[in-house]
Amino acid sequence: MSRPIVTFLSDFGHADWFVGVVHGVLHTLSPDAHIVDLSHEVPPAQVARASFMLEAAAPDFPPGTVHLAVVDPGVGTARRALAVSAHGQSFVGPDNGLLEWAFCSPEAHVHAITDPRFMRGPVSRTFHGRDVFAPAAAALANGESVSSLGPRVTDPVRLPAHEPEKRGDALVGHVVFVDRFGNALTNLTASALAGAFGDRAPDSAYDVDVLERTIHGLSRSYGDAPVGTLVALLGSSGRLEIAQVGGPAAVRLGLGEGDAVRVRPHR
Amino acid sequence: MSRPIVTFLSDFGHADWFVGVVHGVLHTLSPDAHIVDLSHEVPPAQVARASFMLEAAAPDFPPGTVHLAVVDPGVGTARRALAVSAHGQSFVGPDNGLLEWAFCSPEAHVHAITDPRFMRGPVSRTFHGRDVFAPAAAALANGESVSSLGPRVTDPVRLPAHEPEKRGDALVGHVVFVDRFGNALTNLTASALAGAFGDRAPDSAYDVDVLERTIHGLSRSYGDAPVGTLVALLGSSGRLEIAQVGGPAAVRLGLGEGDAVRVRPHR
Amino acid sequence: MSRPIVTFLSDFGHADWFVGVVHGVLHTLSPDAHIVDLSHEVPPAQVARASFMLEAAAPDFPPGTVHLAVVDPGVGTARRALAVSAHGQSFVGPDNGLLEWAFCSPEAHVHAITDPRFMRGPVSRTFHGRDVFAPAAAALANGESVSSLGPRVTDPVRLPAHEPEKRGDALVGHVVFVDRFGNALTNLTASALAGAFGDRAPDSAYDVDVLERTIHGLSRSYGDAPVGTLVALLGSSGRLEIAQVGGPAAVRLGLGEGDAVRVRPHR
Repeated sequence: MSRPIVTFLSDFGHADWFVGVVHGVLHTLSPDAHIVDLSHEVPPAQVARASFMLEAAAPDFPPGTVHLAVVDPGVGTARRALAVSAHGQSFVGPDNGLLEWAFCSPEAHVHAITDPRFMRGPVSRTFHGRDVFAPAAAALANGESVSSLGPRVTDPVRLPAHEPEKRGDALVGHVVFVDRFGNALTNLTASALAGAFGDRAPDSAYDVDVLERTIHGLSRSYGDAPVGTLVALLGSSGRLEIAQVGGPAAVRLGLGEGDAVRVRPHR
Repeated sequence: MSRPIVTFLSDFGHADWFVGVVHGVLHTLSPDAHIVDLSHEVPPAQVARASFMLEAAAPDFPPGTVHLAVVDPGVGTARRALAVSAHGQSFVGPDNGLLEWAFCSPEAHVHAITDPRFMRGPVSRTFHGRDVFAPAAAALANGESVSSLGPRVTDPVRLPAHEPEKRGDALVGHVVFVDRFGNALTNLTASALAGAFGDRAPDSAYDVDVLERTIHGLSRSYGDAPVGTLVALLGSSGRLEIAQVGGPAAVRLGLGEGDAVRVRPHR
Repeated sequence: MSRPIVTFLSDFGHADWFVGVVHGVLHTLSPDAHIVDLSHEVPPAQVARASFMLEAAAPDFPPGTVHLAVVDPGVGTARRALAVSAHGQSFVGPDNGLLEWAFCSPEAHVHAITDPRFMRGPVSRTFHGRDVFAPAAAALANGESVSSLGPRVTDPVRLPAHEPEKRGDALVGHVVFVDRFGNALTNLTASALAGAFGDRAPDSAYDVDVLERTIHGLSRSYGDAPVGTLVALLGSSGRLEIAQVGGPAAVRLGLGEGDAVRVRPHR
């Protein structure tokens, strides 16, 4: 049997000791697991941003991976703790929309974490990453099922909807994430584009409007055009990105999260 | 036998390669150990801050954990290298007060690291994290005792005292750490409060004065009051914290390390 | 057989999920390997800086270590992917000079990574860290030889030369890296100094000129002189450093990468 992977995503930052303490709990309770930090630089309490990051990263991990996600401004209140089985993986985190990509899957199993056998006692009111979520993630890594952690949940908290919209002959989405390199990732996935336009069209068949500019055609990589060229391409997580050859597109354009990006057939 | 945990705390930052090199030494000399980074973002040479972080984090780790701490402005001078056994765990670091919480424990064993068998030769004058402290931590993780590393030390270097003081009917401490979320942690521990006031009083029996404000009563979590409310509570490491529901208290109040926090019975 | 170490150096930063995804690939394909992050804070696309960091760090790792380095502005273009065997270790990264220290070794074996058996399919055009380099590093950690990954390469891309120069009786180099503590590391290695001056001279026999100042003699550590003193010393990676006792020399002097540093016999 292979060693399980437990990923960990949070808004804890690296200046304090909170990430380390969670690693300690995971190693203690699931000594064979590999722990992988996705990121701890989510700005405090930005649940939607972390939710997107989890959706973008999880498909790159193998079946059986356990994803621990803690962006939890409601810690200590009545908000529930969730464990979700979906996409062949497991997900643990607060019931605030963070795990939306997982629990919206048709085959998802969603449970509340309520069984104290899977908690680190006494449970604090301010650090459920340590006392509730990490022990639950360790239990899942050790082979427990999400249903063993507590009762089924049928109404997990949702994030505001942000699906792309068809407007006339165009599909309109928006920037959801600007990465380290200034690439602007959108919610326009390859499958959304295929759904709107069919998937037989060549890349040159699309124009992309962003702010006051139009990018003609989709590129295949960041480096296929002269330095400084703005390009649109399907990036490594299967989403349309706005990029600039050899530089940060988002900085150059003043492009940020929420800005509209429109894809339409080339005329 | 379970795999030992070695934690690692330093002021090395993440922009250089120093943290990685220490990991390499630990993995080489103690291949079964789990390495856990506590933090490497301690500002350069801030020994007292790192000492507090170690005190706050260590109790969350299991017995047998080895804590490696390197904030060492005196590297290469005559300052000693210490190995301490205390609280069922081991601690390795320079003799500059960093390990104070450990060696002040009544049952502590404090030794200098002098035996070259437990060093990585030749020992440099500028990187004892690599050449002295990491090998010592690996040896302890492998089951060596602190007494095998060198002679007993009876006079480890202390930090300036910073215990809370009883003044009239109040207990006066100060802010020792502002965390990622803007919560201001104080040196007023649950046990110091119990010592000053007894521990049968309900949480509402206390008032907390900080800067020009008074907070009435202690809260149970960060989320039990309307957004924007200032609260005082006992946080996850057992210390009084000043927090704000849904925001950074320290930013709002202009609260920083050293600012006085006074707890007194509610009148 | 000991567990292999795979180090990982990149310009990915910690705010995104890219480092985590690469860890996931490595753990999946080489479950026994220890992964060590050297740094991911290389500024985007700064190949020469990353190349220096790899050269400075690699000698501190044991034989058999695999070094994965991804600073890859040309991802998706025709630039090759390299695997190098040198110095008793292996190196994987793009063919842009990043691995120069490895492939310039006289006994180096340099191969292109072309065999799709060692890639993660389908290979994206924008994330070869995940799809090409990490799988190759895992294969090497599992015992594959660099020659199994693809054909021999005889003309790897070089960085601009930056060797120290002998001028009159002086050896002139420059600052190549300013570390976390404000120490300015130069390309004046111990062996370059020995080559220029012989290695029998005592440390006091040298003067060091930097900007408008002269430092007399070499020190043994950062702490051997009064606080505030500027010192020159051979640091932990065997290079001449300009440092200040108890403070950041580079900040005080306004010293940065590329500034000249001249070593000459004391007159």
